[in-house]
Amino acid sequence: MSQTTLPQGPKCIFCRIVAGELPASRVFEDDVCLALMDVFPLRPGHVLVMPKTHGEHLADLSPALRAHLLETANRIAQALRRSALAPDGIHFAVNEGRAAHQTVPHCHIHVLPRRRRDLLGLIGQILSKPIQLIRGPSAPDERERQARLIAEQLEP
Amino acid sequence: MSQTTLPQGPKCIFCRIVAGELPASRVFEDDVCLALMDVFPLRPGHVLVMPKTHGEHLADLSPALRAHLLETANRIAQALRRSALAPDGIHFAVNEGRAAHQTVPHCHIHVLPRRRRDLLGLIGQILSKPIQLIRGPSAPDERERQARLIAEQLEP
Repeated sequence: MSQTTLPQGPKCIFCRIVAGELPASRVFEDDVCLALMDVFPLRPGHVLVMPKTHGEHLADLSPALRAHLLETANRIAQALRRSALAPDGIHFAVNEGRAAHQTVPHCHIHVLPRRRRDLLGLIGQILSKPIQLIRGPSAPDERERQARLIAEQLEP
Repeated sequence: MSQTTLPQGPKCIFCRIVAGELPASRVFEDDVCLALMDVFPLRPGHVLVMPKTHGEHLADLSPALRAHLLETANRIAQALRRSALAPDGIHFAVNEGRAAHQTVPHCHIHVLPRRRRDLLGLIGQILSKPIQLIRGPSAPDERERQARLIAEQLEP
């Protein structure tokens, strides 16, 4: 479908991370997918789960790959709950299209921890995204710490 | 897991809809899942996809049922894109826990259409949800119209 019209391979930032050309705070990976900490987290512990092959939308992936991504996202969420980050709630979200805030055209599931009464903080983070993009990504040490906290709670 | 501690069967509003005890604007159903229009839509064309059996979180469902829900949500999104509602973007979202705005403890995937520059409208709708809950649900005729527009674009 839309793969042919979009940056992929060496041009897609997620494809470059998958290929090891760019660093990332990895939480989990297997043959077909990769989970890493979002460098512009909307809340602490914000994880992205993506296929290792390029595709813009869920519809560009195979049913088996879609199912595998969801299983992986669910495992990450369970690990997050058991971890020291201990969220009160969790969103799973896939954003498709710029109008839905898809900033990288490589399909990914957001696993976004929530705390009670953090809605205004979340909205502030969404509205200030343009400023964050100028300021630069979150502290790598903190992302690595959170990645370890989640990874150590993953069931084998 | 959490099923045993939560309203289900006759007490869960989604279980009652599945059983036909409460009305809904149905977009699609098969043996194991049901898709209907949200009665408090965050944007026009807001669909919910749910399993017919009760479970609070994704982790309470079987892997096969999780995969089937995602496949159905993806089919609904494709139909939405082809429909007269023609969104510019789409969110898929599962909210788990009250802190993540899960208002019915019966797992469901939101398929939420977006328009360019409708972020403030969306945030306004989220923040005014308590007022909407008092005012009551959206107009049933409009929900039925949207359900038909989407259903007629579903691939067989």
